[in-house]
Amino acid sequence: MATTRSLAMTTEELSAYLDEVFPQVRGEFGVDALAPGTITMRLNVRDHHLRPGGTVSGPAMFSLADVAVYAMVLSMIGRVPLAVTTSSAVDFMRKPEAGRDLLAEGRLLKLGRLLAVGDVLIRSEGREEIVARASMTYAIPPQRE
Amino acid sequence: MATTRSLAMTTEELSAYLDEVFPQVRGEFGVDALAPGTITMRLNVRDHHLRPGGTVSGPAMFSLADVAVYAMVLSMIGRVPLAVTTSSAVDFMRKPEAGRDLLAEGRLLKLGRLLAVGDVLIRSEGREEIVARASMTYAIPPQRE
Amino acid sequence: MATTRSLAMTTEELSAYLDEVFPQVRGEFGVDALAPGTITMRLNVRDHHLRPGGTVSGPAMFSLADVAVYAMVLSMIGRVPLAVTTSSAVDFMRKPEAGRDLLAEGRLLKLGRLLAVGDVLIRSEGREEIVARASMTYAIPPQRE
Amino acid sequence: MATTRSLAMTTEELSAYLDEVFPQVRGEFGVDALAPGTITMRLNVRDHHLRPGGTVSGPAMFSLADVAVYAMVLSMIGRVPLAVTTSSAVDFMRKPEAGRDLLAEGRLLKLGRLLAVGDVLIRSEGREEIVARASMTYAIPPQRE
Repeated sequence: MATTRSLAMTTEELSAYLDEVFPQVRGEFGVDALAPGTITMRLNVRDHHLRPGGTVSGPAMFSLADVAVYAMVLSMIGRVPLAVTTSSAVDFMRKPEAGRDLLAEGRLLKLGRLLAVGDVLIRSEGREEIVARASMTYAIPPQRE
Repeated sequence: MATTRSLAMTTEELSAYLDEVFPQVRGEFGVDALAPGTITMRLNVRDHHLRPGGTVSGPAMFSLADVAVYAMVLSMIGRVPLAVTTSSAVDFMRKPEAGRDLLAEGRLLKLGRLLAVGDVLIRSEGREEIVARASMTYAIPPQRE
Repeated sequence: MATTRSLAMTTEELSAYLDEVFPQVRGEFGVDALAPGTITMRLNVRDHHLRPGGTVSGPAMFSLADVAVYAMVLSMIGRVPLAVTTSSAVDFMRKPEAGRDLLAEGRLLKLGRLLAVGDVLIRSEGREEIVARASMTYAIPPQRE
Repeated sequence: MATTRSLAMTTEELSAYLDEVFPQVRGEFGVDALAPGTITMRLNVRDHHLRPGGTVSGPAMFSLADVAVYAMVLSMIGRVPLAVTTSSAVDFMRKPEAGRDLLAEGRLLKLGRLLAVGDVLIRSEGREEIVARASMTYAIPPQRE
């Protein structure tokens, strides 16, 4: 969707802004690809993301989905630090493969004045099987102009 | 997904089976397209699906998403009358347009031994905007061979 | 929650209003109990709610949860016909018992200016076991004063 | 629910087991209260849980809900390391208060042979307002006897 609108931020601006607002996770997430209404977001898997057996934890996958949808929203409307997640639904389908980053393919399904909705599919890098599916709703502060 | 597996039922067999197990809604749903792992399911909108203003009700959209994922599962594994929905998440994004059928584009994200997961996007026929998004998990009875 | 606020509508006013805005389902739902922030809503089970085997269908349970949360919101803020469901999540846990009405126990978890959230537990009347769990988010039109 | 069944693990055994299987988060979560079918789980809020402004992040709340339901399941069926989250839905309703731990009140809604379902309400310690609501489904490995 949203193909008739253009990006409000470049990949570089978006990455820099995410590092600025989420300093605790600086370097964990990367924007591999960005276009109006779609994104590929990477989780640079590190030890603290792992569960016994070497697979990425559920909360780490939740984070990846959350930041992917947030980044898609920001890329369209610009810097809105107060946008917050209001609802989320995640299905965990398979174990991620040990030793591989996770990639989230996101698409923006709605970009309204007050609510934005996106969903993502998460895979281990280089694999076809879907590891998790997530949908996220963001509330956008009304006073945004 | 599931492109390496073939269909266990044709569109005609699937439609006949849905009419058989859901006699109350006979004629309400139609299979417009079917391939391994994907489906296009139609809601033939009737008066009792409508809310004031002529838009399709939320429960009618829930039904459409539910039957679309159920049909995808059956199309792959054959007649399993006891498969049941265990979890669902639906986001309603826009009002459906009055006077138009709804089309659900479904994809099967996981077809495991015990659980199957699919998601759908619902649109008013002939429109690009997404009306609703749904994901559904089905439990498959273990004794299915 | 919301115990410091009082009801904006009586049970009778609420029931009459639901019949008015949802004429297609008149008589299907009943308000058994209402207090600020909680509700007991009944589904008067009829043939068209049933699946083979005599159990209530998933979409009928979705409807019950949806109208229960909607009714709680209206009971607090008064007649707001344009409030719409934006997100929902339902877990189906057991088959409802044949030949019994369903009762939904709802509680309002948030009543904000723009969004309201409630959840419900659904049981077959007279039974302890939970049949389904649902949470629903409603968007409230901004121009409501 | 589940009041007719007794606990399979004490609070101490449960806490020790969680530390053993989730060594990365040792000390972050605590079991404040445990009974058959209910739990109070604490998130000892630390710097890396926080977002700008001092509020706890969404992923940290997801983790709290996830571990609370997992702990309830384990407390009833004993050590089952392979139980995995399959579906989750979380609604974020208010900002947690800065400088306070989070408490999750969980209840087990279903404990089946293959699936367990629980939900939680999360609050800032000492506050009445609900910060988040979550429901989680766990798949239990079939070979558990």
